[in-house]
Amino acid sequence: MTIDDWSNNWLIMKRNKKDEILKIAFEIIHKKGFNNTGIQEILTSAGVPKGSFYFYFQNKDDLGLQLIDYFLDSFISKADEMLHSDHSPLVQLRLLFEYLSNNCELAGFQGGCLVGNMAQESGGLNDKFHAKLNSSFQVMQEKISEFLSKAVANNELSETIDILQTANFIVSCMEGVLLQMKVSKSTESYRVFDRIIFDKVLK
Amino acid sequence: MTIDDWSNNWLIMKRNKKDEILKIAFEIIHKKGFNNTGIQEILTSAGVPKGSFYFYFQNKDDLGLQLIDYFLDSFISKADEMLHSDHSPLVQLRLLFEYLSNNCELAGFQGGCLVGNMAQESGGLNDKFHAKLNSSFQVMQEKISEFLSKAVANNELSETIDILQTANFIVSCMEGVLLQMKVSKSTESYRVFDRIIFDKVLK
Repeated sequence: MTIDDWSNNWLIMKRNKKDEILKIAFEIIHKKGFNNTGIQEILTSAGVPKGSFYFYFQNKDDLGLQLIDYFLDSFISKADEMLHSDHSPLVQLRLLFEYLSNNCELAGFQGGCLVGNMAQESGGLNDKFHAKLNSSFQVMQEKISEFLSKAVANNELSETIDILQTANFIVSCMEGVLLQMKVSKSTESYRVFDRIIFDKVLK
Repeated sequence: MTIDDWSNNWLIMKRNKKDEILKIAFEIIHKKGFNNTGIQEILTSAGVPKGSFYFYFQNKDDLGLQLIDYFLDSFISKADEMLHSDHSPLVQLRLLFEYLSNNCELAGFQGGCLVGNMAQESGGLNDKFHAKLNSSFQVMQEKISEFLSKAVANNELSETIDILQTANFIVSCMEGVLLQMKVSKSTESYRVFDRIIFDKVLK
């Protein structure tokens, strides 16, 4: 093994351990909330000593901010997967929402949207979180806008639609739907959302 | 002063003190979240000793459950005020949402909807909270349904509209709007909601 090999392996190990902590922290914080979760609980579940945690994250806030990116990356990669599928743009968008609803159901209606959850808790969080959460909503809106622009180009939607406003509205609705699903432990709100968004708003 | 007078005065004093604790607890928990607020912080702000708190509330959970009623009462009383105004039913509904948005703005975009906030935190809360929050969403939907039924009777809305589903959808959207307002510290999401709900969904 050369020094380069060793160094590469070490970098992979390091990334893996960090990803493992993020994955476990995500699962716990997604269910219990950020303010309600202590670092020790994450460390115990991940089986890592305190020193390791501080090797990867400056503090709990740093972990929270990196978790938002971790969540957004997974949202964007799923949206891009849909955008590259063979369906028409509006069907692609419909499938993305179906995926989000299924995901919530599979998790026993716990969790919902990490960005939404942290936004609810943001009164107790600092300015860095506010800025991060605000830009995260914009990232989600821009991704939804991509579907809508494609739908206009594909003549599935009228050119007169205000794409950015409609994307902002859809993000609001989906956040509220995930919230209601979490409490009702049913997909009813999602089914209503699907019907009204695609039969009325995107007509 | 008769014993009856004394007893009445004592009951009023008791209710006032309880309302005062609820009002202060509401302000703090609305901004910081339920899990993130300790009883001691509420007691200090309200200037009441621990013993008084436990005279009115069994524990923190009991306070949380009573706070949800306190919030719903104020929502219902504002909705009823609108329902009894001289405007047409859809204008009454529009004014209710305008009030909710103004209220959020006046509070410096902190707070939002207490039911929504506690629903986000509900992963860390017990079954009693889940049941209470679920029924609270239903209460809000039924209240919105009243406006929609009146609008149908007033020929402002078509008889073919599914009132309960539309009310469920509107509650989802409004929850998401309040969430985005909280993070963006702007009324933009509300303005978009107003336009799309009244120009597309309620057409």
